[in-house]
Amino acid sequence: MTEALPLASNPNQIWIYDTTLRDGTQREGLSVSLEDKLRIARQLDQLGVPFIEGGWPGANPRDVQFFWQLKEEPLKQAEVVAFCSTRRPHVSAAEDSLLQAILAAGTRWVTIFGKSWDLHVTEGLKCSLEENLEMIRDTVAYLRSQGRRVIYDAEHWFDGYQHNRDYALKTLAAAIASGAEWLVLCDTNGGTLPHEVSSIVRNVALFIQKFPTPHTPHPTPLLGIHTHNDSDTAVANAIAAVMEGAKMVQGTINGYGERCGNANLCSLIPNLQLKLGYQCLADAQLPQITEVSRFVSEVVNLAPDEHAPFVGRSAFAHKGGIHVSAVERNPLTYEHIQPEQIGNRRRIVISDQAGISNVVAKARTFGIELDKHNPTARQILQRLKELESEGYQFEAAEASFDLLMREALGKRQHFFEIKGFQVHCDLVEGRTNTNALATVKLTVNGQDILEAAEGNGPVAALDRALRKALVNFYPQIAQFELSDYKVRILDGHSGTAAKTRVLVESKNGHQRWTTVGVSPNILEASYQAVVEGLEYGLMLHMMAETVLSTSS
Amino acid sequence: MTEALPLASNPNQIWIYDTTLRDGTQREGLSVSLEDKLRIARQLDQLGVPFIEGGWPGANPRDVQFFWQLKEEPLKQAEVVAFCSTRRPHVSAAEDSLLQAILAAGTRWVTIFGKSWDLHVTEGLKCSLEENLEMIRDTVAYLRSQGRRVIYDAEHWFDGYQHNRDYALKTLAAAIASGAEWLVLCDTNGGTLPHEVSSIVRNVALFIQKFPTPHTPHPTPLLGIHTHNDSDTAVANAIAAVMEGAKMVQGTINGYGERCGNANLCSLIPNLQLKLGYQCLADAQLPQITEVSRFVSEVVNLAPDEHAPFVGRSAFAHKGGIHVSAVERNPLTYEHIQPEQIGNRRRIVISDQAGISNVVAKARTFGIELDKHNPTARQILQRLKELESEGYQFEAAEASFDLLMREALGKRQHFFEIKGFQVHCDLVEGRTNTNALATVKLTVNGQDILEAAEGNGPVAALDRALRKALVNFYPQIAQFELSDYKVRILDGHSGTAAKTRVLVESKNGHQRWTTVGVSPNILEASYQAVVEGLEYGLMLHMMAETVLSTSS
Repeated sequence: MTEALPLASNPNQIWIYDTTLRDGTQREGLSVSLEDKLRIARQLDQLGVPFIEGGWPGANPRDVQFFWQLKEEPLKQAEVVAFCSTRRPHVSAAEDSLLQAILAAGTRWVTIFGKSWDLHVTEGLKCSLEENLEMIRDTVAYLRSQGRRVIYDAEHWFDGYQHNRDYALKTLAAAIASGAEWLVLCDTNGGTLPHEVSSIVRNVALFIQKFPTPHTPHPTPLLGIHTHNDSDTAVANAIAAVMEGAKMVQGTINGYGERCGNANLCSLIPNLQLKLGYQCLADAQLPQITEVSRFVSEVVNLAPDEHAPFVGRSAFAHKGGIHVSAVERNPLTYEHIQPEQIGNRRRIVISDQAGISNVVAKARTFGIELDKHNPTARQILQRLKELESEGYQFEAAEASFDLLMREALGKRQHFFEIKGFQVHCDLVEGRTNTNALATVKLTVNGQDILEAAEGNGPVAALDRALRKALVNFYPQIAQFELSDYKVRILDGHSGTAAKTRVLVESKNGHQRWTTVGVSPNILEASYQAVVEGLEYGLMLHMMAETVLSTSS
Repeated sequence: MTEALPLASNPNQIWIYDTTLRDGTQREGLSVSLEDKLRIARQLDQLGVPFIEGGWPGANPRDVQFFWQLKEEPLKQAEVVAFCSTRRPHVSAAEDSLLQAILAAGTRWVTIFGKSWDLHVTEGLKCSLEENLEMIRDTVAYLRSQGRRVIYDAEHWFDGYQHNRDYALKTLAAAIASGAEWLVLCDTNGGTLPHEVSSIVRNVALFIQKFPTPHTPHPTPLLGIHTHNDSDTAVANAIAAVMEGAKMVQGTINGYGERCGNANLCSLIPNLQLKLGYQCLADAQLPQITEVSRFVSEVVNLAPDEHAPFVGRSAFAHKGGIHVSAVERNPLTYEHIQPEQIGNRRRIVISDQAGISNVVAKARTFGIELDKHNPTARQILQRLKELESEGYQFEAAEASFDLLMREALGKRQHFFEIKGFQVHCDLVEGRTNTNALATVKLTVNGQDILEAAEGNGPVAALDRALRKALVNFYPQIAQFELSDYKVRILDGHSGTAAKTRVLVESKNGHQRWTTVGVSPNILEASYQAVVEGLEYGLMLHMMAETVLSTSS
């Protein structure tokens, strides 16, 4: 997308602005690595989200890294946006270090949030109301002068408007006059109800008509909405604003965010696009949204909400009886939308046709053509269901799923056979780092191998021992690297006795793949995932070799 | 409450109808015993909910027990309601076994649901549209003749109204004419959006004005609303209906219900009562709602949603220094309501954005008075930042933070001293479950203890060994239990060599607390967290003892 403007597009276009990577990470207990943020950004880009807010470089220096990484390996179409406050009181914008940090991010678009509520100016910033207006003007104008396009987030908009309407409107006027292209009305405390959002957005839309937008390509300023879920109405509030003319919706995947979360894009997008006729994503991309929801929850390592509207595992679950035959005869009778429209599926507690087509579709993504009526497809589905009931999860572990399919199709090459492992750890109080010793037993080409290695943790030791055992047979293993490792305890209620699911991401020079292992023993689960990671890497290498040899 | 009628009360009275025990139990994975249902009913009665739907005696014979139990030991003020469908096609009401079952429940009020949507009559019931009207008339009239007061749930109302308005309205007319006192409009599939609810309820309110209500004490029929959350707007939909004149709101505690759940009463009641001036509960009872929410989640054994609006643990959590000092100066600036109004509390989250004011505020929540200028406060902040840079996270590990503060203040009691541990795991391929053996070394009261235990995983083995070692000195440890265990790998970059952060939640009979451990070795991190969990539990026990002894 070269120009992120609604002008070019149809009048029903709504611009989705994802802030999972900034506001979403404010959720208590959610923390993401740089690598996680990049993976999520690329997934959102693929989904077709036009604006992705990447972070606040001024507040989190680590975020600068994120923007630099995206400079080296840019997104396909999305605009990545850097976030920042207006300049500090009584400092010129050019001298404000926070603004220097946002410029350093090197994005085309920046989002600046400013105070709309007089109370926050006098009590929070402790400066005059006039100085706050000057901060908005100066900041926006400066960023424009540096070639940035500006989205203005009006913080605490709805509370500010209700306490001091005249002043709140002045802050918007200041942003417009200095060149902000989008004005985003934020319900920062999440206390506003839909009917209030409707009437306030209606009034604002009328108000801004009067203003010329000198420095922007738009005839009038564009409105956006940013809601929080403290009143349990974030989605309804955003819809209300869109129905009054807001063209941008800010929210997060799975509604992650501070306190009770932000407006959930996984609910908003289907509501806007399937029920109200707005265009948020390309129709072809909408069915990805369920997978994106689950992908993000896996990456941030939070259990998916099975009861989430639209994308939850239970969202289209039907119990037996008349209900089921009715829904199968005419889904309209018991479903508000067709689950396939958003990539979810109906779940009925009997053998499930939808599953087969998923398997077939999935196989295709791995370049495996599978006929719907091929009995193997049913075997795979069967095996898949068994494993899922044991706690395996393939949403984010496609490499393991690929191996599972090749196994069923008799196309899985076994590069080695594992015989067993032992791990020994001991910690003596006072000694700084613990020692872990791992021993692995394998058979490669009919040859028994026993290998041992140490590490600063049991999994590192296991990984090292496996590589030592295999590198003489498969030197390419030297290029493989474990790039991420995630652990989820299934059924937290049974504490340490519960099952453990481990996701391991591996990479070679140019590819990444993720594998999964499950066991009550965290070391065994890790071992399974690490072993499959190595196996899959060898398979990829072999396939590349084949391509090369045939193409030469 | 002798007469469950709004007439007597003020015009802003809204009648809460709780269906947690019927619709709520439709939630996938939720099951309740008869005893659970009785406990929940009594809790709702105490909260002041006027109508409590107890179950469907016809469909679940066990529900009859529930009603009989309540006959022997009646609720204080709530009306307990039995639920049932209209009679079957082509059978007289008097001969329908389902209706005999609802009469057997012996309640004063009954709720009857009937079909509003022609499609469901022809496709579901497979009878004529006229027969369905007759089923409604006959059923309601029969129950009235048996001395029951009738609430009529118009199933699939909104879909029915949009597909065949005339017929849908005929079904309501039939219910009114035969003596139903309440007409509850149900969005059974949960697909309706707030603006649609508003306009439809407005039209229905006008429509029913024309009808006399011969057999009831009301001049006109009364409207109610029953919404589901499939569009993520259940709460907004119910509010929209109330604003158009609905006087009854049906919903569930915590929004439990089929698929994506029902309208969440824990959000609806505060919105209606604190923001819109309606009366749902006595003002004195509203602060019980947070406790009721948690009580119900405990009874049905589902982890409470920490991010739930109003009642969630994170609903009033604040991060970041400036923010915190602002909220303490003037809560209005960052909170949409006062948490105390609904029995929740403000929480200051300890995070790497922490400032000195967070530490002081946090200390206060643990009953530790700390002066902002006390050098210890700065030491704690310093230590906090060191630990956070090492990967510790105290947001979700308040027990560890409490121990850290007591340490700094020289108030931490050491119940034992850890000397070291050893763990041995071995997996032999083919053997089903791996064995883990743990050995721990401790000093308690100057006595060296060496103890060993096995487990189906290394952490379980460590936990068991520690308890064996300590239980003779601290028998209360027998009541402690590990209730949750979370693992996060920090900085995915370095894969298995990366640091591991473990969060352990422990509980005794009545409290839960969370501790944290960090190490490159996942077993050491787990060990740290488990050890602090035991230590904190012992501290809580000791403090309770002290209170008892001093108070006696």
